[in-house]
Amino acid sequence: MIHKKKGSNRISDPGFGEKVGGRTQRLINKDGSFNVQSDTSRFAGHNIYQYLLEINIGTFILLAMGGFVMLSAAFAVVYYMVGPESLSGQRDARELHSFLDCFYFSTQTFTTVGYGAIAPQTPLASAIAALEAFIGLLFFAVATGLLYSRFSKPKSKLLFSNNAIIAPFNDGKALMFRLANMRRNTLMEMSARVILVMRNKEDTNRNFYNLELQLDKVVFLPLTWTLVHPIAEESPFYNITPQELIERDGEIMILISGFDDTFNQTVHARYSYVAKELVRNARFVRAFQIDEEGKVVIKLNDIHNYELLPQETLDSAK
Amino acid sequence: MIHKKKGSNRISDPGFGEKVGGRTQRLINKDGSFNVQSDTSRFAGHNIYQYLLEINIGTFILLAMGGFVMLSAAFAVVYYMVGPESLSGQRDARELHSFLDCFYFSTQTFTTVGYGAIAPQTPLASAIAALEAFIGLLFFAVATGLLYSRFSKPKSKLLFSNNAIIAPFNDGKALMFRLANMRRNTLMEMSARVILVMRNKEDTNRNFYNLELQLDKVVFLPLTWTLVHPIAEESPFYNITPQELIERDGEIMILISGFDDTFNQTVHARYSYVAKELVRNARFVRAFQIDEEGKVVIKLNDIHNYELLPQETLDSAK
Amino acid sequence: MIHKKKGSNRISDPGFGEKVGGRTQRLINKDGSFNVQSDTSRFAGHNIYQYLLEINIGTFILLAMGGFVMLSAAFAVVYYMVGPESLSGQRDARELHSFLDCFYFSTQTFTTVGYGAIAPQTPLASAIAALEAFIGLLFFAVATGLLYSRFSKPKSKLLFSNNAIIAPFNDGKALMFRLANMRRNTLMEMSARVILVMRNKEDTNRNFYNLELQLDKVVFLPLTWTLVHPIAEESPFYNITPQELIERDGEIMILISGFDDTFNQTVHARYSYVAKELVRNARFVRAFQIDEEGKVVIKLNDIHNYELLPQETLDSAK
Amino acid sequence: MIHKKKGSNRISDPGFGEKVGGRTQRLINKDGSFNVQSDTSRFAGHNIYQYLLEINIGTFILLAMGGFVMLSAAFAVVYYMVGPESLSGQRDARELHSFLDCFYFSTQTFTTVGYGAIAPQTPLASAIAALEAFIGLLFFAVATGLLYSRFSKPKSKLLFSNNAIIAPFNDGKALMFRLANMRRNTLMEMSARVILVMRNKEDTNRNFYNLELQLDKVVFLPLTWTLVHPIAEESPFYNITPQELIERDGEIMILISGFDDTFNQTVHARYSYVAKELVRNARFVRAFQIDEEGKVVIKLNDIHNYELLPQETLDSAK
Repeated sequence: MIHKKKGSNRISDPGFGEKVGGRTQRLINKDGSFNVQSDTSRFAGHNIYQYLLEINIGTFILLAMGGFVMLSAAFAVVYYMVGPESLSGQRDARELHSFLDCFYFSTQTFTTVGYGAIAPQTPLASAIAALEAFIGLLFFAVATGLLYSRFSKPKSKLLFSNNAIIAPFNDGKALMFRLANMRRNTLMEMSARVILVMRNKEDTNRNFYNLELQLDKVVFLPLTWTLVHPIAEESPFYNITPQELIERDGEIMILISGFDDTFNQTVHARYSYVAKELVRNARFVRAFQIDEEGKVVIKLNDIHNYELLPQETLDSAK
Repeated sequence: MIHKKKGSNRISDPGFGEKVGGRTQRLINKDGSFNVQSDTSRFAGHNIYQYLLEINIGTFILLAMGGFVMLSAAFAVVYYMVGPESLSGQRDARELHSFLDCFYFSTQTFTTVGYGAIAPQTPLASAIAALEAFIGLLFFAVATGLLYSRFSKPKSKLLFSNNAIIAPFNDGKALMFRLANMRRNTLMEMSARVILVMRNKEDTNRNFYNLELQLDKVVFLPLTWTLVHPIAEESPFYNITPQELIERDGEIMILISGFDDTFNQTVHARYSYVAKELVRNARFVRAFQIDEEGKVVIKLNDIHNYELLPQETLDSAK
Repeated sequence: MIHKKKGSNRISDPGFGEKVGGRTQRLINKDGSFNVQSDTSRFAGHNIYQYLLEINIGTFILLAMGGFVMLSAAFAVVYYMVGPESLSGQRDARELHSFLDCFYFSTQTFTTVGYGAIAPQTPLASAIAALEAFIGLLFFAVATGLLYSRFSKPKSKLLFSNNAIIAPFNDGKALMFRLANMRRNTLMEMSARVILVMRNKEDTNRNFYNLELQLDKVVFLPLTWTLVHPIAEESPFYNITPQELIERDGEIMILISGFDDTFNQTVHARYSYVAKELVRNARFVRAFQIDEEGKVVIKLNDIHNYELLPQETLDSAK
Repeated sequence: MIHKKKGSNRISDPGFGEKVGGRTQRLINKDGSFNVQSDTSRFAGHNIYQYLLEINIGTFILLAMGGFVMLSAAFAVVYYMVGPESLSGQRDARELHSFLDCFYFSTQTFTTVGYGAIAPQTPLASAIAALEAFIGLLFFAVATGLLYSRFSKPKSKLLFSNNAIIAPFNDGKALMFRLANMRRNTLMEMSARVILVMRNKEDTNRNFYNLELQLDKVVFLPLTWTLVHPIAEESPFYNITPQELIERDGEIMILISGFDDTFNQTVHARYSYVAKELVRNARFVRAFQIDEEGKVVIKLNDIHNYELLPQETLDSAK
């Protein structure tokens, strides 16, 4: 899938463009989205739906309630203009109450409760009420459909360690980071691809390098998964100083894919570490325990934990 | 997947048929559908559903409202024939009102608002009302289900440049076109296949040729993607005049597939350029900018833009 | 995927079992299902849902209406036993009407229409009515959900020619059959696999043979697709008489898979031809036309049509 | 996908971790879930939805009814505090009834039945009722959505034989177990992978071994499927005593994947046999019959059945 270029592990552009010119921000945001914007023409069409799925639940309920109140009020105005007397059950003539009666009749129609204590008396009021009931049914179909979609949407979520580390590995060093499944979903057939992007020394073009992993696939993901890129001779990390990595806007882009057996879906996760999120000379601390019954217990918050090694360890490892 | 034939890049029929005989219209329409019709027997079964999803939203609402009004009216006729007096709350004896009362009672039953200002008084009227409420619930289930499906249907949409161009490339020329993601959906693992179809010089049969791309896969699609078919010796474009391409009904068929990570679905797009949509001796203009913060901003409308090159450029490139 | 066995094209059991012993019926029914039954333990669990999706729409509506009437009647009995006087609006004391009033009140509650002309007056009646409204909402959720699922379920349907034929092909003969898309769905990336199953001459075990196709994949399926298995020396059809094929319970099993781009789903179709559905010495008749505008029009019913060839054609072809 | 290690069939960790240390429980539970727990932080977010889908239907209905009653009661308290006189139709002043009236009015509003025998009379009561109808619609959208999801969720379920057996096979022995489709769903393109995990003799680390199958794919699964791992020289079972397998916590992990053509989904099943579930010197009994019409009938419960062989059979087979 990735076409190798020339020597080393340099690969062709995986889709971000090579000739951007000048310094840019990170390519992949911490939430996995691409750090790219579009001019307004892109904000058409499907975005309302996505927006309504992505906002937090409180905002969503408020928006739904706001829509309900505003549409009911709009119809209330119509009933009031038609003449409140066309609704039965109007008990007093004070104007405010009268409009409020229109409004509450309107809400009762919009939600199809229809107590009937107030009811349309004229053909015109009846026609408006029929229209309102129709619109109310459509409105609540969309609102409740969205609520259910939000509720039922599969959210397999991988937790990545806050830092990638460079740790001793066999007789050398390796770049490592780890991840765990934050949900109770069963994840399977996971595979990983890791790409380093750095700007070129000579021009400002970006170069992309494949970081080969010791193990790029696991059948199951019941625990944490530590991804290991051994820093061998052909690795772009082999002879680069921390300072150079920062100057060249180095970014480690990670693409994980797998199968969520609970929701029967292929899942993808994207993540990236920029140069300053890389910790040298460290070692991850174990993130699970065996309890007294022999059962494995994962401690999710511990996957971020690493311990710094004394300087000589790294040197001797090297 | 595509079996090569004989020499060059000629491939076997990808499904359109080779022995059509005589001139035909373009094979793939601009919206990606196949330019093929069926006799009536095909317009059975599933088409109503597709039709109701594909018509524009205004037409859909009108149809739903029409269905609501007509079904309510049909039941109103039944109530009227049964005798309007079987509904309580009939306030006057004038015939028109009386039918209108039946109609508005009917709408109130159909939408399950049921104010009760008018209510069925006889067993027969009650039975009809029970049936109407049942049918109303089924009707609105389908209408609101369709509305929500329309609203939530993933519409990953690729924008293709209006023209394919023949531009200088390395030491020669290449056929190029580009595409961008019109939505905010995250698209990944894109792959492309490009096929040229031309009628044969000798007989009227169609021949199909694979157009090899410099890069036929990208991992991410955050920006635009320019597809490049270098016109090397084995390319069917190598020795063909613009006139010949038009006469032989040349059409460049494009098949893009990828994964929409927002909607968790595999997506496909089809597009085609016929001979007269091919611009020779041109170069695409860049369609994105880096803003002051280093963020990349795509300008969707610019992906169509190209500039014509002075004639000598092409010649010297050749 | 299919492991070849010994010489020829014999393959290992694709899942039907080899040692069945004795004559059995066809393995794949004309609707693509397997001709296998299970003892009762299999008819548990999920079958109600599948059953309700598969029955015809009239039966489904009748069942839904029956459920509505029966549940309403059951609640009516409860109201009647509690005492009809606990419902307001009872206008007369005749017993029949009184039960009918209970029944119609019950339907109005079950559908949540709730006119209120009859309404619960006692706490007990109110509690029963609350329960009925709750159950009514759940009942209609399932009934309307099923109706919408039935309506929106993708039904990509392939039409296979009624017969497989043995036709002249190049310098020899070939087994051919064809298929077309009965819907307006866009089908793509079709692939086919054809397996011959025959009982062994010596024992009654089944043998399975792969029938190699001249072209087993097409990128698009806008028209019909004729699948061609050339009867070469290694084909199990090479030296078998029609009579022998019938005696050995020969069955040609076809497995088509592809991608339905309209419903964004992988689709599979299964079909089979038994020995007596095989026509020798015939040729398919073209099933599409080019209309006056150059547009291709498929004639679905024509895909079954073939013409018998004079005997000598086949002989000379042979 | 699985990287072989050193000699034999040892493979790298498929995701369970190698350096666990000490004895642990079985890795895969009988229901296919991983025998791993997480600390509390994992029980956030999506679990309510999964929980509500997984509990049994009785519990679900009770929870839904409980939610309905409690929310209605909460609103009843509000109506009662606002003053029961703000609702019309209060027929007597006794406090209990009055609160009950509030409650039943509340249920009628929550379910949008709205008889109107009791109806809000003041703006405040009307506003609360409008809010309650809104919340009731959202509540029932989620409750009925869940009910329908539970009802319609595809549940392809494989039945595995209770025991794996070691049976004579060709000139040697083989590890065998079998499975059948418990549903009427059509399953296709099945593939299997079998992994043995054992703790190391020297340290407590786990080793993983691939168990090669005689046939690891079948195209169809209409009947039962017997999976056969021939115990050849490179098999980890070749020279291991039953006692050693138990001491080393041997576990045979099975991963089946396939395509459910009825629900158009990829399906996975996991299962495992621990050492004590392995029966030596046995043979499976046939689990299907051919009825008088030549139709194959599977007997699901029989797939567990095996017969023990006389000792000499195994010895001579060896």
